[in-house]
Amino acid sequence: MGLRTVQGEMQRVLGHLFGQSVELQCAGRTDAGVHARGQVAHLDVTAWPDDVDAGRVNRALPDDVRVTSIERTTMDFDARFCAIWRRYTYRVNDDPRGPDPLQRHLVLPHHKALDIDAMNEAATALLGEHDFAPFCKQRAFASTIRTLQRLDWTRDDDGAAVMTVQADAFCHSMVRALVGVMLPVGEGRRPVEWPGKVLSRGEKDSAVTVMPAFPLVLEEVGYPPQDEWAARQRDTRSVRTLD
Amino acid sequence: MGLRTVQGEMQRVLGHLFGQSVELQCAGRTDAGVHARGQVAHLDVTAWPDDVDAGRVNRALPDDVRVTSIERTTMDFDARFCAIWRRYTYRVNDDPRGPDPLQRHLVLPHHKALDIDAMNEAATALLGEHDFAPFCKQRAFASTIRTLQRLDWTRDDDGAAVMTVQADAFCHSMVRALVGVMLPVGEGRRPVEWPGKVLSRGEKDSAVTVMPAFPLVLEEVGYPPQDEWAARQRDTRSVRTLD
Repeated sequence: MGLRTVQGEMQRVLGHLFGQSVELQCAGRTDAGVHARGQVAHLDVTAWPDDVDAGRVNRALPDDVRVTSIERTTMDFDARFCAIWRRYTYRVNDDPRGPDPLQRHLVLPHHKALDIDAMNEAATALLGEHDFAPFCKQRAFASTIRTLQRLDWTRDDDGAAVMTVQADAFCHSMVRALVGVMLPVGEGRRPVEWPGKVLSRGEKDSAVTVMPAFPLVLEEVGYPPQDEWAARQRDTRSVRTLD
Repeated sequence: MGLRTVQGEMQRVLGHLFGQSVELQCAGRTDAGVHARGQVAHLDVTAWPDDVDAGRVNRALPDDVRVTSIERTTMDFDARFCAIWRRYTYRVNDDPRGPDPLQRHLVLPHHKALDIDAMNEAATALLGEHDFAPFCKQRAFASTIRTLQRLDWTRDDDGAAVMTVQADAFCHSMVRALVGVMLPVGEGRRPVEWPGKVLSRGEKDSAVTVMPAFPLVLEEVGYPPQDEWAARQRDTRSVRTLD
C-alpha cells in the first residue's frame, strides 16, 4: 500500500539498529488515525548490540513517533497475547466555543451539550462479558465477545467530555462505535436504555455512528505478573465463545 | 502578500457578521508561527446586530481560530495601547526521549539537559527597565526600552522546561532572543552572568540565537481599571526614552 505507519517507521529504525529484519507485534493494532500514548510492542532478535537503547532509537525516528522505554524480556512475553486489558480515552468538546485550536487534533468538536450523568447511567448496561458484534466490524471466524471492565465519562480541565473505556480487548472500530451509541444519550435524543438495547439486540444498528478516529488514544496496556505470561498467551490464542 | 493570518480570518468573519468592513487591533502582534491563547483585540463598528456573539463568530471561523468572548466597550479602550503587560510562555523539552509526539507542535526539542536553577539565576539581571536593543530586531525610530516584570523557568507536568516572561510590551523577536540567551546558560556552555552582560553591552551579539516561533504562546494580556484606560493610551502612544 505504501501507507506510512508507526509500525513501519519502527521496523525501519529497529531493523537498522539491530542489523536484521524485524517484525513488530503490537498490543493494540489501532485503526488508522488513532493515537497511542501507551502502546506496547515486542520483537524477536537474534542479537542485541550494546548501543541499542531508547535514546538511540528516538534519535533515528521521525518526531511524530517516540519510544518511552525498551527492555529485554523472555520468549514467554507477547505484547498482544499476554495483555489482559487495554485502556482508551476519547475526547469530545461540547463547549459552543469549540475546542482549543492548539488541541483540536485530539478533541472532537460537538455542537450539542452533553449530559455526562446520562451517559454514565447508560454505560452500566454495557459492562461485563457480552457479544459486542453490534459495535464491531464483523470478520469471518473472529469472535466479537469481549469483557468491558470500565466505561465512564468525566470532564477534563478544559471542560471536554472524556470517555475512558477498558476491556480485555477490542474489536475493530468498537471504541468509536461505543462513543457513537453514547453521544445521542448525552444529547437527550435517545433514552439511557438505548445502548443496552442495541447490545442485547445482537445486530448492527444503522443509527449507531462510528465516530472519527483522531480523538481516540490508546492510553495503557495491562499485563499479568511474569509467571502468568505463558498461560495467558495460551488462553488468548484460543477463540472464545459465550457458553 | 496573500498569507493566511489570524487577523485576516477574524476580519473576514467579523466583517461579514457586522455587515461592514472592520479592522482588528491586537494587543500583541505576534511574529509568524507564534500561538496566542490569550490574545485581546478590539474593533470599531457603527452598529452591532443582535445576533453577533462568540458562538456565532466561532461557527463561521475555521477550526484553528477561536474567540473565547466578545464584549462591547467604550472608545477609551484600545487593545494595544491600553495594555499594561503581556505574558508569554516558551516550552523546551530536554528529555533525551524527545517531546510527546501529540504535543510536539508546541514544544522545542532540545538535545542537552537544562539547569533550570542556573537559568533562573541568570534571569534576574534582565528584570526591570532596560534598553532591550540586543534582543530586538531594530526598527528606525522605534524605542526598544521595555520593563521586564517577570522572567523565570519551571518544569511542567510533562517535565518540559517552561519559560514565563512578562513585560509592559515586547519588541519583535525579543522573547525568542531571550530564550536564545538563556539556553546556553542552562546547558552550562555560558556562565550565568552572560545574559546580563549581553544586555548591558547594548548591542546585538551574534552568539544569541533567535529561537523558533512555534513553542511560543501569548498567554495573557493585562489592562488597568477602566477609569485609567484613556490615560494609559496617551502614555503608551508617546515614545519612551531612558532619562
